Amino acid sequence: MQLPKGFSAGGLSVGIKVSGRLDLGLVKSDMPLAWALATTQNLAAAACVRRARLLFESQGSLHGLVVNSGNANCATGAQGIQDDQRMATVAAGLLGVDVDGILSASTGVIGVPLPVGKIEAAVGKLVLLNRVEVFAEAILTTDTGIKLAEAILPGGARVVGVAKGSGMIHPNMATMFAFLLTDVAVSQPELRRGWPEVMAKTFNQVTVDGDTSTNDIALLAASGAAGPVSANRFWSGVLEVSTSLARRIAADGEGAEKLINVRVSGAGSQATARQAARIIAASALWKAAVHGNDPNWGRILAALGRSGAAFSAERLRIRVQNALLFAGGVVPFDASAVSEAMRAKEVVVEVDLGLGQEEGESWGCDLTEGYVKINAEYTT
Amino acid sequence: MQLPKGFSAGGLSVGIKVSGRLDLGLVKSDMPLAWALATTQNLAAAACVRRARLLFESQGSLHGLVVNSGNANCATGAQGIQDDQRMATVAAGLLGVDVDGILSASTGVIGVPLPVGKIEAAVGKLVLLNRVEVFAEAILTTDTGIKLAEAILPGGARVVGVAKGSGMIHPNMATMFAFLLTDVAVSQPELRRGWPEVMAKTFNQVTVDGDTSTNDIALLAASGAAGPVSANRFWSGVLEVSTSLARRIAADGEGAEKLINVRVSGAGSQATARQAARIIAASALWKAAVHGNDPNWGRILAALGRSGAAFSAERLRIRVQNALLFAGGVVPFDASAVSEAMRAKEVVVEVDLGLGQEEGESWGCDLTEGYVKINAEYTT
Repeated sequence: MQLPKGFSAGGLSVGIKVSGRLDLGLVKSDMPLAWALATTQNLAAAACVRRARLLFESQGSLHGLVVNSGNANCATGAQGIQDDQRMATVAAGLLGVDVDGILSASTGVIGVPLPVGKIEAAVGKLVLLNRVEVFAEAILTTDTGIKLAEAILPGGARVVGVAKGSGMIHPNMATMFAFLLTDVAVSQPELRRGWPEVMAKTFNQVTVDGDTSTNDIALLAASGAAGPVSANRFWSGVLEVSTSLARRIAADGEGAEKLINVRVSGAGSQATARQAARIIAASALWKAAVHGNDPNWGRILAALGRSGAAFSAERLRIRVQNALLFAGGVVPFDASAVSEAMRAKEVVVEVDLGLGQEEGESWGCDLTEGYVKINAEYTT
Repeated sequence: MQLPKGFSAGGLSVGIKVSGRLDLGLVKSDMPLAWALATTQNLAAAACVRRARLLFESQGSLHGLVVNSGNANCATGAQGIQDDQRMATVAAGLLGVDVDGILSASTGVIGVPLPVGKIEAAVGKLVLLNRVEVFAEAILTTDTGIKLAEAILPGGARVVGVAKGSGMIHPNMATMFAFLLTDVAVSQPELRRGWPEVMAKTFNQVTVDGDTSTNDIALLAASGAAGPVSANRFWSGVLEVSTSLARRIAADGEGAEKLINVRVSGAGSQATARQAARIIAASALWKAAVHGNDPNWGRILAALGRSGAAFSAERLRIRVQNALLFAGGVVPFDASAVSEAMRAKEVVVEVDLGLGQEEGESWGCDLTEGYVKINAEYTT
């Protein structure tokens, strides 16, 4: 997939990952980038998150970003802060820009000092092209594949998104990176106004295991090389790309075999609808039921009951794969037919709270023996 | 184990469970019981929980309780409310007391009408003895064994506790029953004053899978047959029995192979300490790490970071099985020795937040392939 106009990117293996897989990615923009940012709300935020917030507050432009996917550089104290700055300095030197124009991002093992020397020694071999695939591969950890999405806007402008995330995924946020790059001309204030709403509807509605990470960063950056488009078209493109990436992250949850999409309607507010959708998508019992193709709607009801969302007991409706399972009470349904329908790669749950007009959506995945296996054996 | 003076209990199979295992339990008291109660906070509360709350508010005495463990009688509408009352009426008839003196409790599958006729037909065969074991067995669902604890108080008075709970276990509360019976003479106001604090320290600190149930009931009931003891001795007996049962519930979590005990100290408030302990004990990633004997303290840190608890980054200490893994930063430790120590049946995590004097504790269990298997195959 081509990057938007004016962007180039690449990746290489500098030896932070012992596997020898790609572990360093770099993006360069020929023009200064207007940008918006969202970061983890975890109090144990990593060095890169702290630096990103400072850059964000300073309101300057970006010229590129550097990502390492072998070492989270988290819980590494003052040394970690210095190492993160050094990683940005290396990238800035290579691109010939000021260090404050480089966003740095790290993911991987927590609590081990970042071997910046390896980055310094190898970065010169990096090749930058107008394609995104190598960069997309270089930011992965336990992901099973690269995650890309694009929206094409009037006049040939584009929004290209690249993400990574597989475990420790839960709203606000996750071990997740999402970088959305566009050549549309949009002002920094406009980007920063609209990005939180897209985040609330997409990346913050992804849940894999209820654990949030220390390193999450989501960036929206615009070079302006393709000129302006209408705000409406621009934001629907951003929403489309973000939704697509959010779905990919959920579907690629650690050990996951299926995507779970929960759609809640009839709520008094969007926040309530989103919260209810998230709690259902995150329920370990419902996730295990989806894994076993079991239309056990009692678990959906139990999760809803603890979500804090108000609902009408009489008007409550629960559907799974289009089959009505609950309508203000128990309704007869063909359990084996619904179970058969649940064998699909995507299981859709629809819950109508029967109280209002607002809706919300969430994405998760089934809970499998594979999830346990992956996470019982990650560092030992 | 003998029941306290004046109590008798029993259980039988009435055919609600298709397995033919015991599914109906009954407790009788010769004297009117002063009592305190805690119930689930799930909004989809079952019929028995609604009835229990009404009885609680009416301030009357209890004379016994009836429990079925085959059918939750939840999401069964107006019919469910009637069926629950009918189950209590059957028990009241057998014991020769008023129906409002009988606490009714149900657990099992959600959304299926309760076959009260089976209870009516079989209840006459029930044998009541001064022993608790048969009743303890009759209230189990996916538990692997009965859960009993007792405390012996001055003058031969006793507190006997019996509990059940294995899956859908999370604070506030769980698919959990706990019945604490005592022959101490304690007033109803005193019981109701002290019980919430014991709940907060024990049963509400148990977490198996983050899912809360629709049917949870925890009862503390006193007959007075053994006369008064000091409030101090009485409540420490109740706390001892409750803690013991809470540990058993966590250790018997669905698929669990190990108990996880998280102790948080150095907090600004008990509530903060308990919250942090719960979030760590509930972390799917940490639970999987414990399963794999992996001293992956980064997952403890990440869970703490999203718990909402304030901590001092410089003074934070994390210990696992007595080994110091984190002390304001990364410290060297012998990973294979700690991993070896984690092979025990109980893994103790100690976290010192470095801010205050308050403490809190939580109990959970490891996340295993067995948990997934049990819950992917529960109803189909």
